[in-house]
Amino acid sequence: MTRAPLLIVGSMAFDDLDLPSEKARDVVGGSATYAALAASHFAPARIVAVVGEDFPAATLEDLGKRGVDVSGVERAKGRTFRWWGRYADDLTSRTTLDTQLNVFADFKPKLPAGFADSPYLFLGNIHPALQLEVLAQVRAPKLVAADTMNFWIEGERRLLGEVLKKLDLLVVNDEELRQLAGVHNVTRAARAVLALGPKKVVVKRGEYGALLFDAEGAFFVPAYPLEDEIDPTGAGDSFAGALLGVLAESGAFDHRTLRRALHTASTVASFCVEGVGTKALAALTHEKIRTRQAVLRVLVHPGD
Amino acid sequence: MTRAPLLIVGSMAFDDLDLPSEKARDVVGGSATYAALAASHFAPARIVAVVGEDFPAATLEDLGKRGVDVSGVERAKGRTFRWWGRYADDLTSRTTLDTQLNVFADFKPKLPAGFADSPYLFLGNIHPALQLEVLAQVRAPKLVAADTMNFWIEGERRLLGEVLKKLDLLVVNDEELRQLAGVHNVTRAARAVLALGPKKVVVKRGEYGALLFDAEGAFFVPAYPLEDEIDPTGAGDSFAGALLGVLAESGAFDHRTLRRALHTASTVASFCVEGVGTKALAALTHEKIRTRQAVLRVLVHPGD
Repeated sequence: MTRAPLLIVGSMAFDDLDLPSEKARDVVGGSATYAALAASHFAPARIVAVVGEDFPAATLEDLGKRGVDVSGVERAKGRTFRWWGRYADDLTSRTTLDTQLNVFADFKPKLPAGFADSPYLFLGNIHPALQLEVLAQVRAPKLVAADTMNFWIEGERRLLGEVLKKLDLLVVNDEELRQLAGVHNVTRAARAVLALGPKKVVVKRGEYGALLFDAEGAFFVPAYPLEDEIDPTGAGDSFAGALLGVLAESGAFDHRTLRRALHTASTVASFCVEGVGTKALAALTHEKIRTRQAVLRVLVHPGD
Repeated sequence: MTRAPLLIVGSMAFDDLDLPSEKARDVVGGSATYAALAASHFAPARIVAVVGEDFPAATLEDLGKRGVDVSGVERAKGRTFRWWGRYADDLTSRTTLDTQLNVFADFKPKLPAGFADSPYLFLGNIHPALQLEVLAQVRAPKLVAADTMNFWIEGERRLLGEVLKKLDLLVVNDEELRQLAGVHNVTRAARAVLALGPKKVVVKRGEYGALLFDAEGAFFVPAYPLEDEIDPTGAGDSFAGALLGVLAESGAFDHRTLRRALHTASTVASFCVEGVGTKALAALTHEKIRTRQAVLRVLVHPGD
């Protein structure tokens, strides 16, 4: 039996992280890295991304061992994309101190021939023009999901609008949703964004959880109540990766399946926060996911 | 069959509300008013509070018609307690512009003789010395719950500590919980606060919902996803009032009953936000509560 592959396009990066617990340097990160690691527990992932000459071969090898196809990761001349961020003491906000695009500045996603038939597609948070280029190279995707950010919502609204029209699923945080809709109220904002194209919208709310809005109504999954929050970097990408991974694994995209997938996504994202960079995510097992997801289900049980 | 009464001590007030939608003046409010209105759908409430000569007799009569015993509301010489607050455009924060204690400055809660046997007790957010005075006048309460605020946590820590030791249930918002515990992480903070005395802690998180922590674990109820938020004043007090009302109605205080009661409390609080002051709360019916609570249950259903 062949499991349906999930194509992920996004960044692979070095992050410098000023965390309350430590200053971590040259941490391997990027939206595609986190999403693929999270998805790999559920479906074979394929990455399309660019790295520089300084990116560790060991990371790509490790992803390969996890069933992630990294043949779409281009190694370009120059240095890898780099982000430096500082987190507040309570980890609820962060400031970007530096961004170096490096090889990402000239990134033109080129899909290996075998990737064109990918049934599941996650367009990570990159320039909407690049998201459209990837979409154009995939023949007949069964499900297309995307993330975006304030920068593209402000500066590339028209192109982003083109992306939105082609989406089955948009995965954004609440600030991005509000900015896209121009409305503060989350329920109204979600409805406005659904009118722009996506069949379903998932709104990430960090430590508070996530909401799903679609034609069948709304669904809420809380974040797992962590006691040791170390590093939220990549939690949103892990959430999206796990979500798409579970959908690819199940082969379904109905409202009920989404609910179950969102419980898994919330669970996986919670592990991501428990280690610096991808450390905790890399140590994740099905057994750990199952155990914590059971706790999350109990957490919301109405009691009768 | 006699239903178990719920004694509520707290403020009755005039609020001046600078809302995004309007500037509302001389709005009847106060923690005891909101809590009693919410509780009255589930149990006979009894209020202990003080009002001035300017407080409308019609409000007390209306409460009476709803089964609320207002014989413990003292009418003192002078003006009623008054609060003036301005809300941010998104209603997520507010600034106090003025507080006038007026008759509340000399408030010495005196329970009518018939109130001393009250089995359920909600000590609203007043000076912990007054909370203790009320407690001393109740013979053998079955369940004692209380709220508090940053002002008492900072300035009356020792007395507040005495209150905490006598509580079955503490109902606070997340900032108050963190301040009480001196810990940011909500799960750790809740555990620290449980060690101070309360058997259970409920943490209110506004538009995100509420958490319960006790010896049996944690429970999360989301806020109802409103589309028309008008005025959050009193939502926390309505939440506590409904919670205690359901507990008084059920006669139970186990973890499972708390879960169900919290779903009702979240539902009732959502209605409070849909009108200025007590307007929406006053128009509430059992049918409206049932319908919305069913939606809230579906909102968190994991999908299988």
